[in-house]
Amino acid sequence: MKTAITGTGCYIPSERKPNEDFESAHFVDSGGRPFDNPTSDIIQKFSDITGIQERRYASKELNTSDIGHLAAEKALEDAGIDREDLDYIIFAHNFGDVNFGELQGDTLPTLATRVKHLLKIKNVKCVAYDMLFGCPGWVEGVIQAHAFIQSGMAKHCLVVGADTLSRVVDKYDRDSMIFADGAGAAVISASSETGGIIAHTSATYANGEAYLLRFGNSFKTDTSEDTRFIKMNGRKIYEFAVTQVPKAMKECLEDSGVDISEVKKIFLHQANEKMDDAIVKRFYRLFGMNVPEGIMPMNIQKHGNSSVATIPTLFDMVRRGEIEGQSVREGDVVIFASVGAGMNINAFVYRC
Amino acid sequence: MKTAITGTGCYIPSERKPNEDFESAHFVDSGGRPFDNPTSDIIQKFSDITGIQERRYASKELNTSDIGHLAAEKALEDAGIDREDLDYIIFAHNFGDVNFGELQGDTLPTLATRVKHLLKIKNVKCVAYDMLFGCPGWVEGVIQAHAFIQSGMAKHCLVVGADTLSRVVDKYDRDSMIFADGAGAAVISASSETGGIIAHTSATYANGEAYLLRFGNSFKTDTSEDTRFIKMNGRKIYEFAVTQVPKAMKECLEDSGVDISEVKKIFLHQANEKMDDAIVKRFYRLFGMNVPEGIMPMNIQKHGNSSVATIPTLFDMVRRGEIEGQSVREGDVVIFASVGAGMNINAFVYRC
Repeated sequence: MKTAITGTGCYIPSERKPNEDFESAHFVDSGGRPFDNPTSDIIQKFSDITGIQERRYASKELNTSDIGHLAAEKALEDAGIDREDLDYIIFAHNFGDVNFGELQGDTLPTLATRVKHLLKIKNVKCVAYDMLFGCPGWVEGVIQAHAFIQSGMAKHCLVVGADTLSRVVDKYDRDSMIFADGAGAAVISASSETGGIIAHTSATYANGEAYLLRFGNSFKTDTSEDTRFIKMNGRKIYEFAVTQVPKAMKECLEDSGVDISEVKKIFLHQANEKMDDAIVKRFYRLFGMNVPEGIMPMNIQKHGNSSVATIPTLFDMVRRGEIEGQSVREGDVVIFASVGAGMNINAFVYRC
Repeated sequence: MKTAITGTGCYIPSERKPNEDFESAHFVDSGGRPFDNPTSDIIQKFSDITGIQERRYASKELNTSDIGHLAAEKALEDAGIDREDLDYIIFAHNFGDVNFGELQGDTLPTLATRVKHLLKIKNVKCVAYDMLFGCPGWVEGVIQAHAFIQSGMAKHCLVVGADTLSRVVDKYDRDSMIFADGAGAAVISASSETGGIIAHTSATYANGEAYLLRFGNSFKTDTSEDTRFIKMNGRKIYEFAVTQVPKAMKECLEDSGVDISEVKKIFLHQANEKMDDAIVKRFYRLFGMNVPEGIMPMNIQKHGNSSVATIPTLFDMVRRGEIEGQSVREGDVVIFASVGAGMNINAFVYRC
């Protein structure tokens, strides 16, 4: 029995937030001091490195579970299955539902229960749980669905990844420009076809790396001490990612028994364009090769880093022909890989 | 290959909070109105129904991940395995790390990563993730570990359940007296012995029941609107639990092929003594039987309802002979069952 992706969907939040909108920001460094260079220079440098020109924010009235539900509806429609046949709803996120303008994340009930509620699924045996694994949460959710299918505990799982990072960023921190809101989903099913997950790998680096992404106070030192935001050590994360992700991908590909020449696409977590370029470059270098043209679809330019949502959104857009020059065909071998808070890394090799 | 519990541990928080401590509370009803009867009467009625005489709170300097770590150390010592052999750390909780006196839950990095960090585990292939499933989270974590073991993805998993509910209760709500802090853990391993998980079941009731436990504003209407707390519809939860939990337990026992006469103990989520008594009574009634003497160990009297932590704490205490007149022996068939936010219900039948 194989584990196949039988449907995908995403929700693109409606509020377009271009880089220019940050020109009125008052960025300070981690010590609370203003930068010497003008904000427009900071934005230009940010754009040059990350590739991000604009990002999307969810409209005020929508929460993480709402946008997760909208992506789920599309994935279910695409899969063409009866939603009552779902055995699991796995919702990967990192901050719960955060109402616009508020501080507390809300996970009572779980976001998976909220999605099940909105999907109006009556089958109580469809088990809904939330899973937290940093940005690689959606990929890990697929691997968990794979475990349920391979152990005979499930035939159909809905794996949703959604976060509204715009509501947990420190507006005084220039890293706030990276983060975005988004939602993606896929139906993962037991399949007797030839395609499916061929190999997978996951890792948690919890020693020196554990707090490279963490919750911390605002850089603006005179603001409330109690409120915390996403904080990251960008330089160290970059070094970590470009070293460890290519190795994990190589190991996973070798486990799959598929030759590197057969790999048609790589769907990487959309964290930072330069970092993603460096990861793929180093991955091919491990095989003594140059990066094949067009191997890595990207949408970070217009969507930013929406955490767990980047990969399912990107894969869905490519499947629907919404990224110029990019497509996947039946039989294509593709690699999914992610890196993020934890620090966690995961990957799977998949035959479409 | 069987899935066996090879080690258990718990951490009993140090701060004893007896019912008398609530005599100075200013409880109000859901409309913000004071009750007619004196607080001492409210406490007495509460104690008569729930059986709770005191509960434990974590000391100010310890967070949910810290107490989870302390329970995990004991479970690992009990199992006698090398911690570097763990394939998974699954941390079930519902609110993240909530610093004493603050509002925001912190799940960046995940609590599972924090535990791995504190355990000083070097093996990066030990995958650490958080799982949210209401009070039944620890039981569900065991079922997920079972899936990983049965699919060949793991040999040893550490399943931790911890919450510090004292930090997310509304002090104006008399239901705040139910909730407690606690942490329990178990090592779940692939085993070639005769014991192990024989059958399991899980369910999510997400239609009318989804919001019976939810995050909501304080009953004290003149306090900050932005802060939210655990809120529950106690009467409806009681009706739901006493109806659905016995059915789920019966179905699970029938799946296991074990006769009801062979069941030696039932480890129920410690939510409310009267409710737990009613669940077990109805369960035996479904088999036309009376409840056998001593079938259900309880510790709610001194520990309160510590969410995900109640069952692993209770099971560990019974295994260590810390509950008078209660013990489990090799070969005994026992049932674990839980109910809580989601609304979720789960159970597994286990041969010791």
